[in-house]
Amino acid sequence: MASLTVPAPPCLKRPLHVPHRHMFGPGPSNTPDRILQAGAKPVIGHMHPETFEIMNDIKSGIQYMFQTQNKVTFAVSGTGHTAMECAIFNAVEPGESVLSTVNGIWGERAADVFERIGATVNTIVAPPGGFFSLDEIEQALSKYRPALLFVTHGESSTGVLHPLDGLGPLCHKYDCLLLVDSVAAMGGAPLHMDKQGKIDILYTGSQKVLNVPPGSAPISFSERACQKIFNRKTKPVSFFLDLSWLANYWGCDDKPARVYHHTGPVTAFYSLREGLAMLAEEGLENSWKRHESVAEYFHAELESMGLKPFVKEKKARLPTVTTIVAPHGYDWKEITTYIMKTHNLEISGGLGPSVGLVLRVGLMGCNSTKANVDLVLTALKDALKHCHKSKV
Amino acid sequence: MASLTVPAPPCLKRPLHVPHRHMFGPGPSNTPDRILQAGAKPVIGHMHPETFEIMNDIKSGIQYMFQTQNKVTFAVSGTGHTAMECAIFNAVEPGESVLSTVNGIWGERAADVFERIGATVNTIVAPPGGFFSLDEIEQALSKYRPALLFVTHGESSTGVLHPLDGLGPLCHKYDCLLLVDSVAAMGGAPLHMDKQGKIDILYTGSQKVLNVPPGSAPISFSERACQKIFNRKTKPVSFFLDLSWLANYWGCDDKPARVYHHTGPVTAFYSLREGLAMLAEEGLENSWKRHESVAEYFHAELESMGLKPFVKEKKARLPTVTTIVAPHGYDWKEITTYIMKTHNLEISGGLGPSVGLVLRVGLMGCNSTKANVDLVLTALKDALKHCHKSKV
Repeated sequence: MASLTVPAPPCLKRPLHVPHRHMFGPGPSNTPDRILQAGAKPVIGHMHPETFEIMNDIKSGIQYMFQTQNKVTFAVSGTGHTAMECAIFNAVEPGESVLSTVNGIWGERAADVFERIGATVNTIVAPPGGFFSLDEIEQALSKYRPALLFVTHGESSTGVLHPLDGLGPLCHKYDCLLLVDSVAAMGGAPLHMDKQGKIDILYTGSQKVLNVPPGSAPISFSERACQKIFNRKTKPVSFFLDLSWLANYWGCDDKPARVYHHTGPVTAFYSLREGLAMLAEEGLENSWKRHESVAEYFHAELESMGLKPFVKEKKARLPTVTTIVAPHGYDWKEITTYIMKTHNLEISGGLGPSVGLVLRVGLMGCNSTKANVDLVLTALKDALKHCHKSKV
Repeated sequence: MASLTVPAPPCLKRPLHVPHRHMFGPGPSNTPDRILQAGAKPVIGHMHPETFEIMNDIKSGIQYMFQTQNKVTFAVSGTGHTAMECAIFNAVEPGESVLSTVNGIWGERAADVFERIGATVNTIVAPPGGFFSLDEIEQALSKYRPALLFVTHGESSTGVLHPLDGLGPLCHKYDCLLLVDSVAAMGGAPLHMDKQGKIDILYTGSQKVLNVPPGSAPISFSERACQKIFNRKTKPVSFFLDLSWLANYWGCDDKPARVYHHTGPVTAFYSLREGLAMLAEEGLENSWKRHESVAEYFHAELESMGLKPFVKEKKARLPTVTTIVAPHGYDWKEITTYIMKTHNLEISGGLGPSVGLVLRVGLMGCNSTKANVDLVLTALKDALKHCHKSKV
């Protein structure tokens, strides 16, 4: 047997060190110990009956969080991006026309994925902080006749909560599926998947309002979406994300038994179940109201200290991720670095089209409290006092 | 605001219950408490410097485990299937010719993924328990002139350890990349990514010899593979698995800064780092030897109780997953069910082409001990005594 050419790395001799930190950026958010402990329970098999029961509980929890009766409801084994690709890979075939509404980074990324699988992609673009009226969307639907419309409910890069009312019926009038990304808003802002029209495909992530470590992503497909997907002419590009396999693994189809597809991340399922249980304990409407009132308090206090919310229209402000106009004369990067160093607290700058324009503060799930708002305000005031201000 | 139509599910009121169990199937394997506790450390940001340091440690650990100096070495945010798709999506363009060696389920699955992305797929097939000689592979390379060859190092469905010596030079003679799946063998059987030829793309999973919960998958790309990938004419179908983005997120390229790509599953990284640290503590060669000697003891004891190893050639037997010829006259399903129920111990039946033909016992990482072999033997003897035997 040949001898080793690469020796054991000395860096692995150091014990793992992870600091405690206030996670008030756009995500991941802080994870309560109860959820971390759930994720530290022993590994059992991805096909064991106890795992199937945990997966069934997760399905019920997601149906509650999404307010849907959709049978095909489950968690993707991955982060929000994986869920986005799961939705797009399954719902769209090469050559089909799709429409992506772009008012921040997520519409751009969806457009990128559509292109990669050979769809004909059209976009409508709003400036950072903006969103689309039903009229604007109808014009585009009528012009491009897409098979699918992509909308970001919670645009975490710009702090916009996109209105969803009326979108479902509009899409259906044009024989178009409605795909909604609610990674950053779900659980923190009202959404009724079935009553709103209905939304055909909806997904979120674990690491935002649910306060679960990143690594699983709830998703749901309407019957209309399934009709299209299960009658595709071509196979989706991914076996791992193929809905016919995933729906079976999650017991969402009518087959008598679940078949091995991939090795589900069982400990991620444990913590996801715990996060959903905590949401059910508080009650979805209570969570919505708490996020709303904490955000209102936050926005009022920001204005009273002379800072401006980036999103002008009050009802279009995300209650989970607040964007603040980058304070004039300051280097935003110096502010976030100072706050991290001095207050052990993460807030962040912009992302994609909002880089340089905003500061972003996420208060999601258990982080959404007035006490945490006060922590952020204290840190911001301190930063504005100590960071370098140009004389311009 | 509309009222809720889906009430909170009562099932989530029950506390999460997960049993302790001997995980002696083909994976996931048992996870030591040390690794579970590492994964329960607090969530910090996927772009925080402490996370980058953990990711750097993981890279070094994987380079050690794979015995490679490849710069582009990292962990995919997903299970082994995600790593398979990461390799295939990046390394192959639509219309290219590929060759998959099929001697169990993994070659079949790779062929499926190749087809999905529009490659021209050729296969050579060996019966379950078999493998391919260099001559057979050379014939196929010369006939099909593929851009890439797929080989399964540890065929967990049939218990075969595929010989790798000579494959690299052979592939390179035919200007073909060598892609090796070592999900089930890595860390438990000798492999030298660089010295063996070298292997161009290699991946494994976390939940086998590493004893880490499923959800991360080490992978490495040779410079030759990167040359091809970074000069593609088309974008890979997946943004999430696009190597140019992933290599940057993992600090494997020459760019000055890492750019946000996706939200890395940070707690999965913590536990992966811990698993790699434990492997480095034991030493790779010691781990190889331990798996080999435990497997030899196991196979000898099986024969002494009248059971037959499924793989005839000794040197082609996987030291991590042992396949046993399904005992004549018994229903294999009754045996595995009895052992689970009576001994709280998982062993499994076949998968894909080996269904009905074998029992499979995985003793991987910390599970690979003579004491655990004795547990399995006791359980098997008990099952053969108590399960129903036909008189045929």
